[in-house]
This record gives sequence, C-alpha cells and structure tokens, in this order.
Amino acid sequence: MSKPLILVTNDDGINAKGIETLIRTMQQYGDVVVVAPDSAQSGMGHAITVNHPLRIHRSKLFHDVEAYSTTGTPVDCVKIGIYEILNRKPDLLVSGINHGANFSTNVLYSGTMSAAVEGAMENIPSIGFSLCDFSADADFTGAKKVVEEVTEMVLRNDFPPHICLNVNIPKVNAEEIKGIQVCKQAAAFWDDRLEKRQDAMGNDYYWLTGKFQEIEVEKNTDLYYIKHNYATIVPTQFDMTAYNVIDELKNWK
Amino acid sequence: MSKPLILVTNDDGINAKGIETLIRTMQQYGDVVVVAPDSAQSGMGHAITVNHPLRIHRSKLFHDVEAYSTTGTPVDCVKIGIYEILNRKPDLLVSGINHGANFSTNVLYSGTMSAAVEGAMENIPSIGFSLCDFSADADFTGAKKVVEEVTEMVLRNDFPPHICLNVNIPKVNAEEIKGIQVCKQAAAFWDDRLEKRQDAMGNDYYWLTGKFQEIEVEKNTDLYYIKHNYATIVPTQFDMTAYNVIDELKNWK
Repeated sequence: MSKPLILVTNDDGINAKGIETLIRTMQQYGDVVVVAPDSAQSGMGHAITVNHPLRIHRSKLFHDVEAYSTTGTPVDCVKIGIYEILNRKPDLLVSGINHGANFSTNVLYSGTMSAAVEGAMENIPSIGFSLCDFSADADFTGAKKVVEEVTEMVLRNDFPPHICLNVNIPKVNAEEIKGIQVCKQAAAFWDDRLEKRQDAMGNDYYWLTGKFQEIEVEKNTDLYYIKHNYATIVPTQFDMTAYNVIDELKNWK
Repeated sequence: MSKPLILVTNDDGINAKGIETLIRTMQQYGDVVVVAPDSAQSGMGHAITVNHPLRIHRSKLFHDVEAYSTTGTPVDCVKIGIYEILNRKPDLLVSGINHGANFSTNVLYSGTMSAAVEGAMENIPSIGFSLCDFSADADFTGAKKVVEEVTEMVLRNDFPPHICLNVNIPKVNAEEIKGIQVCKQAAAFWDDRLEKRQDAMGNDYYWLTGKFQEIEVEKNTDLYYIKHNYATIVPTQFDMTAYNVIDELKNWK
C-alpha cells in the first residue's frame, strides 16, 4: 500500500511552532505537502480571497518537506493545495496545531477549523488540531501525543463522508491528559469589548477584545471535557440548517 | 409600544445599492442604525479583526439615518454595533441585501450571513437577505417585497432563540416570484480553479475562481426552490456538531 498524501495547513502562519510540530508528526504517516499562510491569520473564519490576487511562494523552511507559503487565508490554502499544487485531493488534510483553543463556537471564527471544514466540503478526511495555549512558544509535547493517537485512529477506521474533526487539547502536561472524549460543541458566545485608544495623530482606534461566555453549561461538550483535562473530538459538519424550527417557521402567519 | 431598534449591516460595503434598499425598507418598521464595512467584504465568512486595530467613522451617506462605516469585517460590524455604538442589543439585526446568492454552503463563506449568525449567537432575531444577482446595479424591486414580507412575519411571530434566517431571492421580476419556502440548506461545494496571471514585473499571481457543484440534488433545499423561482428561508444555527457520527466515532479502535 502506498503512503497517504497529507496536506498540512494552519492559521498561525507557516512560521508558527504548531505547524512545525504537526509537519514532523505527520511525516511518520505519509508524504507531507505544506500550504500555509505567510502570516498569522487567526480569526479569519471561512474567509476566502475574492477581491485581491493571491501569491504562492515555495518555502525552504522545512528542508526535507515540499512547502508553500501563500498570501491567502487558511481556506484559500486548502483550495490552492488541492486545485493548484497537488492537482488532486490529498488522502488526509490536517490543520494546526493551533496556538489557542478552538472549542465551542470558536469553530466558526477559527481559520484552523475553517480549513478543516473546507476539507470536509471536498470530502477529504480532515482534522483541525488546537492546543489551549495561545503562547507562541507553547509546549506541544502533550498535543503531539494526542495528534498521533487521533491520526492513527483516522488511518485505521473508515472516515464518515463530508465531516471533519475538531480536536482540542488541554494546556496541561502530557501525563495529565486524562484521555480523549468524542463529544458535541458547547453553546457559547463572545461578550465583546472594543478597547478605545488614540494613535499618534490623536485619532481613535479600537482593539476587539472579549470574554468567552457559555450560553448553557452542559456536560458532554468540548468545553466541559477540556476543563476536566480531556482532549476532545467534535465531529463537525457544514449543514447549518436549524431543522428543529423548520415546522415552526412554516406555521408563521 | 416603542418602535423596534434595527441594526443594519452588510458585506458589500456601505456604498452598495443593496444596503440602501434595506435601510429604506427597514425605516418603515423601526429606528434604524447602520454599521457597515467601508469597502467590499465579500467572502469574508465569519472573520474578525484580531491582528489589526479597527477604525469607526460616522457616515453622512444616508442623511436621515445614524450610520457608521468601519474598517472591519461584517462580523466586526455586528460586534461594534452592539458593544460600542448601541451599547445594547438591537431588537432586530438585518444584513444585506447581498449582491449575489448565499444559498447552500455559501452561508459559510458569506460575510452577509456570518453577520446574521453572529446575531444569532447574541440571541438577536437576525436575518440575512441575498438577491441572486451579483451586479452592482441589480434590480431590488422583487427583493424589497420579499424583505417586507419576511420582516413583517418576524415582527408578528416569536423568533426562536439562537437562530437566524438565511433568505435568498431569485433573480426574476417581482411578479415572477412564486412565493417563499422554508427549507434546508443544499449540500454543495466549490470546484475551484486558480487562474494564473503575470503582473507587470513578470511575477505570477492567481485569481480564485470556481464552479458551484451540488453534492446531492435534493428537493426541499434552498438551491432547488431558487431554481424554481421561489424565495427561500433557511433557519440557520451555529452548532456544527455532526451528531449522527458521534456514536460511530466512539466505537473507533
């Protein structure tokens, strides 16, 4: 059996520590090609670049790995990977390891997860990995073990069509991770603030900042398990229909 | 009863014809405040601005309406509207009218719809309106009637918590619209191409382009009804969990 072709991307940019960890881990399992943003693209969600041209550059960052940096978003990188660089669908798409949590509704804001969702649309087995530690020099030792365990499960089993996995890893030492839980996305929103400052010319500008708020505290969610030191897998799909209210709306006057 | 406070945004930018139609239509129903991007933000999905500061400018574009343009994305505009300008949640959030379709999986790429989804997270009755016509001078006559009908239904009925409506309007004359159907999001993906060009310096650049492909042709979807000249309402939520595969994944070896 030939080795799987693995496309690696992220949203923290090609220079991030997280993607290097992911690339080195994936080399155990297959042939790796990297297509990642040339700069940090956190919070880019499912954005694509339609109003600007895209640039693609060969990167020598990982000397033994075929790698490209692009001016695009994480979702652009997936499209570029499939339709321009590989000219085929990879056997596996992995995104991350993100510096920071992507549990709960963060799945919608996250470029890391949007890349995996784009893979799901293309019916490629896709996984987004995120470590709940925003620091640039985060310790990925525990995360690496979870990445290995999940990747091996994915390679051993049939991957359901048109979904991806949202994997989050708690910020604790490797030996403190209690296990991996398959669960659902917690309901939450960002209670935001716009921090007002003045530039050198005396003009106002704002930084977006916020506090993450659970809508309903529930067990069996990613947020619950992360707090209890489990890594989490939320199978994620892209049908956003609220089926439970269709009948109600049909009865509207 | 006091008039509802209505926050209006879009992704085509504050200068678009679609938002002007929406503002003028909403003035029939309540007090309107506009917070919209200062330039076109199509395809921005659920992107937020975390790596750059935001600017907010008072706009005199609609002389009788309180309006602000921002350097942010559509989702930023919702956050700015709630947390900085209104300092409260509006009674209704409307986004659009988008120049171009946002049915099916376009809901994920669409800044117009992401603004409405952000409203759903905040538990604000929220509606994204899109006309299936990309042209800048599109005829919004038929769309305006659908906007009125849907808005009146929303104001007359209880809005389910934490959802929003994805409303698409076919590109036909007002009298050819057969009605409004409540339905589900069609399954589809973009079969993309990267169109390679050379700049004046002889360097390559790429334009993202693609063909929209249905995964499975089904009745009772927005795509189906739009093709048959109905306007569509897809109730839309932000839980992306693929519940149907949780048990399968729990049984993975």
